[in-house]
Amino acid sequence: MRVEISMQVAEGQQIEVIEAGITVVRGIKTAGVHAGLKRKRRDLALIYSESPAVVVGTFTTNQVKAAPVLVTQARVRGRGVARAIVCNSGNANACNGPQGERDALAMGAAVAKELGLAEEDVLVASTGVIGMPLDMDKVRAGIAAAARELARGREAAAAAVEGIMTTDTVPKEVAVRFRIQGRDCYLAGMAKGSGMIHPNMATMLAFMATDCAVDKEALDRLFREVVSRTFNQVSVDGDTSTNDMALLMANGMAGNHPLTAADPEFPVFARALEYAASQLAKAIARDGEGASKLLEVKVEGASSDEAARTIARSIARSNLVKAAVFGEDANWGRILCAAGYAGIPFRPEGVNIYLGDLQVCEHGAALPFDEAVALEVLRQPEVLIRVTMSEGRGEGVAWGCDLTYDYVKINASYRT
Amino acid sequence: MRVEISMQVAEGQQIEVIEAGITVVRGIKTAGVHAGLKRKRRDLALIYSESPAVVVGTFTTNQVKAAPVLVTQARVRGRGVARAIVCNSGNANACNGPQGERDALAMGAAVAKELGLAEEDVLVASTGVIGMPLDMDKVRAGIAAAARELARGREAAAAAVEGIMTTDTVPKEVAVRFRIQGRDCYLAGMAKGSGMIHPNMATMLAFMATDCAVDKEALDRLFREVVSRTFNQVSVDGDTSTNDMALLMANGMAGNHPLTAADPEFPVFARALEYAASQLAKAIARDGEGASKLLEVKVEGASSDEAARTIARSIARSNLVKAAVFGEDANWGRILCAAGYAGIPFRPEGVNIYLGDLQVCEHGAALPFDEAVALEVLRQPEVLIRVTMSEGRGEGVAWGCDLTYDYVKINASYRT
Repeated sequence: MRVEISMQVAEGQQIEVIEAGITVVRGIKTAGVHAGLKRKRRDLALIYSESPAVVVGTFTTNQVKAAPVLVTQARVRGRGVARAIVCNSGNANACNGPQGERDALAMGAAVAKELGLAEEDVLVASTGVIGMPLDMDKVRAGIAAAARELARGREAAAAAVEGIMTTDTVPKEVAVRFRIQGRDCYLAGMAKGSGMIHPNMATMLAFMATDCAVDKEALDRLFREVVSRTFNQVSVDGDTSTNDMALLMANGMAGNHPLTAADPEFPVFARALEYAASQLAKAIARDGEGASKLLEVKVEGASSDEAARTIARSIARSNLVKAAVFGEDANWGRILCAAGYAGIPFRPEGVNIYLGDLQVCEHGAALPFDEAVALEVLRQPEVLIRVTMSEGRGEGVAWGCDLTYDYVKINASYRT
Repeated sequence: MRVEISMQVAEGQQIEVIEAGITVVRGIKTAGVHAGLKRKRRDLALIYSESPAVVVGTFTTNQVKAAPVLVTQARVRGRGVARAIVCNSGNANACNGPQGERDALAMGAAVAKELGLAEEDVLVASTGVIGMPLDMDKVRAGIAAAARELARGREAAAAAVEGIMTTDTVPKEVAVRFRIQGRDCYLAGMAKGSGMIHPNMATMLAFMATDCAVDKEALDRLFREVVSRTFNQVSVDGDTSTNDMALLMANGMAGNHPLTAADPEFPVFARALEYAASQLAKAIARDGEGASKLLEVKVEGASSDEAARTIARSIARSNLVKAAVFGEDANWGRILCAAGYAGIPFRPEGVNIYLGDLQVCEHGAALPFDEAVALEVLRQPEVLIRVTMSEGRGEGVAWGCDLTYDYVKINASYRT
């Protein structure tokens, strides 16, 4: 695994990337089973914390919110404590009217009963086809089987990850270790993505956990900030799903005194979370439906970080930029054009554009460049587009993928 | 040609659709030549009015505006009188720095010299690749040839239309006749579209002319309104180009007293313009890059007309909706989802969705429907999606096209 950021946070404060799943976090057990909502693969995941966990989350901004999003959002914003997350794939339980909400509540109730928990301690998520009622007999049987199979270790984590996948082609996991108050702490997570991926929580699901004890308010604020710089900067196709959510459970089982935002070690935790979330975000972009390349867009010198992020997203989601990356065509005019319609004022004559290290545009106009070098950059599985402006010091990154024949193929016949 | 709106405006007031090009308008001459900017086809068009014309226009909202847009916008918003429009294809003259503006001015100057006009009376437009300097020797020779070939009649109009095409596969023309103060008046236009097509003037160019005399302020206000309901409701790929513009010249050669907004016959003119603009807008959507189907999205019952138009655009531009239409898949959940992320509040339980006449969603939830009937609707070359809401009386229409393998193919290798 390529380590993309400096893991040295400060003198003696290391964040270590480890090959593990979410079960590396103390007290976290998982299971993934085949409930029968999908034809073959696992389609139901259960994540359980032995100790009550502080939970924070972000949810889709779509006006049309799936029933499990409404249920989980209410529980996270209410008591904000969780013991379990249940998630099915193959059916989004969205646009199912009042029955959808009854089914989402029933999913949580079934987990609570199996594990002896209060209903409010169970969070519910779904992903898959919109507008088809859940087969609750299959869901209940799947939950019972998952409850029996709950376990620690990589295999259990891998089974859970498979349970939340839809058109994902690879599982997405991340795990890091860091030290707080002299104790080893773990933070790990899993995610699914693929289609309907766009800022503001598209069917992107991310479930993360840490055994580090963190003050709830500090955790909530940090998580929102981190999501805005990571998951919300991923765009596969510009479609914001009805079902997105990102959840982070902190069960405190590392035994440290809860971190507050003022704690000198809080930045260590913050960096660990940002690293883990950005790895999952990039994994989602890299595995976008039909994608053959990861597209990373960095914008520097914008009027603010938010402006930079907005411009980076506009470029990363442009169909024309994405198709040019697929075609390995150094068509930088489309990049500048996509920056221009992001809705953020800037002076085009202050813009430089780089493909990898190769500058292709200077002061908003063409710069002669070696096409062979450009082709070499565009042939890589990860293509970096860097745009510098002369508006201020704002910077931001967005991730996307190329637009391919396979994207069209997958989405022309998803339901049938 | 299918007539889509009632041509009976009021008692005795008819708008007649005629098979003709822009040269049907009195005093309008055109030419289209091969200047050598493209390999084979015509790549330079000239439109000339024998009499000075009041001109109004709308322009791209992209922060990055091509040089000809800046030049033309200043002239339209300045004196607002025009005698000629020159447009080349094959090169957008965008992102070319100060040289770009010099070249755009020189294009206009060359036309002025050939035709004995003041420079400010010539409007300039370009479309094609971004970031490559114009070959001005070729442009000047092309302008000289076009000036010699200016003529009336369908052939001259067709040559001009070809001169503005890029990846367009069919020419786009419209012409109507109507009576004002007992006189026959004509209004006609041409347009190009294909890629980088999205609201707020994407590389969409539309040049329209009428011989009806109209008060400038009334014409300006009407044109903006009509553009917001027609050209700005077209989305091919969500990319708003650097080069868009829509221009309307009114040379008054019908000899009527100039119409004001208060004139009882003004609605006849307004209807003629709206019809002609909507026909061009639909032609652009139908001929979107790689498109196999025209997608028409109607939203009714929104909180306002603007809200309805915004929601309709969001649906028409959704990659997932477009791919489902290509795949003839009645995946209405994607339609509701795309409505939901348009940024306009509404209650999902008040939403009904129809494919053609077939209702597929009721109160925001699934309604059992006959898949064979749905397939029959989706197999047509024009697919109508109708969404009704319970928020108010706002309504709006947007046009798009399906997302196909050919879109990816065309855009993966446009430049090279």
